[in-house]
Amino acid sequence: MTSKDTAVEDGKQHRYDPNFTQAVINATGPKATPRVRQLAASLIQHLHDFARENELAVDEWMQGVELMNAAGQMSNDKRNEGQLLCDILGLESLVDEITYRLASDATDEPTATAILGPFYRHNAPQRDMGACIVSDEINKQGDRTWMHGIVTDFRTGEPIEGAVVDVWHTAPNGLYEQQDPDQPEMNLRGRFTTGKDGTYNFYCLRPVPYPIPYDGPAGKVLKALDRHPMRPAHIHFLLTAPGYKPIVTQIFDRKSKYIENDAVFAVKDSLIVDFTPFKGDPNAEFELPYDFKMASFEDAKKHGV
Amino acid sequence: MTSKDTAVEDGKQHRYDPNFTQAVINATGPKATPRVRQLAASLIQHLHDFARENELAVDEWMQGVELMNAAGQMSNDKRNEGQLLCDILGLESLVDEITYRLASDATDEPTATAILGPFYRHNAPQRDMGACIVSDEINKQGDRTWMHGIVTDFRTGEPIEGAVVDVWHTAPNGLYEQQDPDQPEMNLRGRFTTGKDGTYNFYCLRPVPYPIPYDGPAGKVLKALDRHPMRPAHIHFLLTAPGYKPIVTQIFDRKSKYIENDAVFAVKDSLIVDFTPFKGDPNAEFELPYDFKMASFEDAKKHGV
Repeated sequence: MTSKDTAVEDGKQHRYDPNFTQAVINATGPKATPRVRQLAASLIQHLHDFARENELAVDEWMQGVELMNAAGQMSNDKRNEGQLLCDILGLESLVDEITYRLASDATDEPTATAILGPFYRHNAPQRDMGACIVSDEINKQGDRTWMHGIVTDFRTGEPIEGAVVDVWHTAPNGLYEQQDPDQPEMNLRGRFTTGKDGTYNFYCLRPVPYPIPYDGPAGKVLKALDRHPMRPAHIHFLLTAPGYKPIVTQIFDRKSKYIENDAVFAVKDSLIVDFTPFKGDPNAEFELPYDFKMASFEDAKKHGV
Repeated sequence: MTSKDTAVEDGKQHRYDPNFTQAVINATGPKATPRVRQLAASLIQHLHDFARENELAVDEWMQGVELMNAAGQMSNDKRNEGQLLCDILGLESLVDEITYRLASDATDEPTATAILGPFYRHNAPQRDMGACIVSDEINKQGDRTWMHGIVTDFRTGEPIEGAVVDVWHTAPNGLYEQQDPDQPEMNLRGRFTTGKDGTYNFYCLRPVPYPIPYDGPAGKVLKALDRHPMRPAHIHFLLTAPGYKPIVTQIFDRKSKYIENDAVFAVKDSLIVDFTPFKGDPNAEFELPYDFKMASFEDAKKHGV
């Protein structure tokens, strides 16, 4: 071993074996893919630096291991606690930003993205334009909202025909339908397909803030960090259109509590919207105009979005 | 948001929102303990740096989440897959080094430490000095070994009375007794208490290399990294004595395969030992002399060991 020699050679005082991390990185074999090799080296370096910089103690490390194991044990088809742990540390929002490479406040670009979150469901009902996604049986107390807008090509400004606007949001009690036995199947979900003019419209509710599940490891971390589990009121969207790059995003109510301190750090300025009082429609108290701008796959590649 | 202003102000091109990580760190509330605040800030910074430096994609991140969740789901009282994942990335060995602050090759210091590993059991049988920890019913094929030595105070060199040498190792098939239904309860485990002269001695086997469990997420990672799951032959020890800092360690057979590339990076030079042919004892083919040096709590504190 040359640890001490090295410590002398580079003129620094090494409290710990300065060759250890490189030895672990070098253990990766020749058949690992270049990407795996890169990610492993970087992860090992950061993990070790984290441990050294903070002089991580055995019991602190073991608490982290137990937290991770507990997160896995709590996860199932309906709940992803590992994802939730990442979310409260901002990692999903950051990876979303990295993947889409969009400035958070760009106005001359395609609609900004936001995290998918754990409550998306495939095969939401296909509904006619102008339909209401609110089940009549419940949600009497919610604020009915008329949402409408146009889906356009961000570069040409032309309307996009055949764009599918897939929408989902929580009930006034803060629960998505699959979390809540009292809500009908697929309540507050719908898919709307644009015609030639690219417009869409439907009735929904003005959403409310709600807590992410905090009865597990993520809740434990939030408590230790003296943080709340609340998300500001938002509506989720997944937009797809033939020839266009899909957009996963959320829009946020400017007047909502927690708009400045979302527990999962998903808010971007360009995704903040205004619900305005709506006159003349007995079915809606509020109006919410919002346009989506999509990038063709070609443009997305060209502009790196 | 001032992300663009900041990017201009500090004269750098920021590909991603330069304020994001600090915003996540700043979310920690006033009631978090100073240590939690420090660890959270450092963890968030390293996680985000890892994501940015490698331009981590959504599907790569999600694969990591699923791996962590699977590790938790595989863990139980007998198996800790989260710990195993840390071990193959060298984290347990590093935390061990940090906690004990020992140079890896020091000779004038207390016995170096090594990781506890997942196979320790409380309440191994208390045995008389000179006893054999090998069950007669099995392990006929192993190499019987006479291990002996003295437990001393590292500073004064005086023998320590009442030191408990708690030992455990694998059977010739590479399995610890709790992994193997064919081994009797507590096979290859024992606790020996020193008398006034500080010496200890017992019969054991010369251990063999074995693989860490590789049928789960840790095995998946090893495969992706093109690495083997093998550990060099070793014997585990936990030493305790009244008034002395406990020592968790392992000693490694110099002639063992994998001594240069332990899958969990636990080998230290000062813990490598020689099994020598032993003449004149019909019960043992090999002899293994090894002395342990312990630090009193007072010395441990004074010398930072």
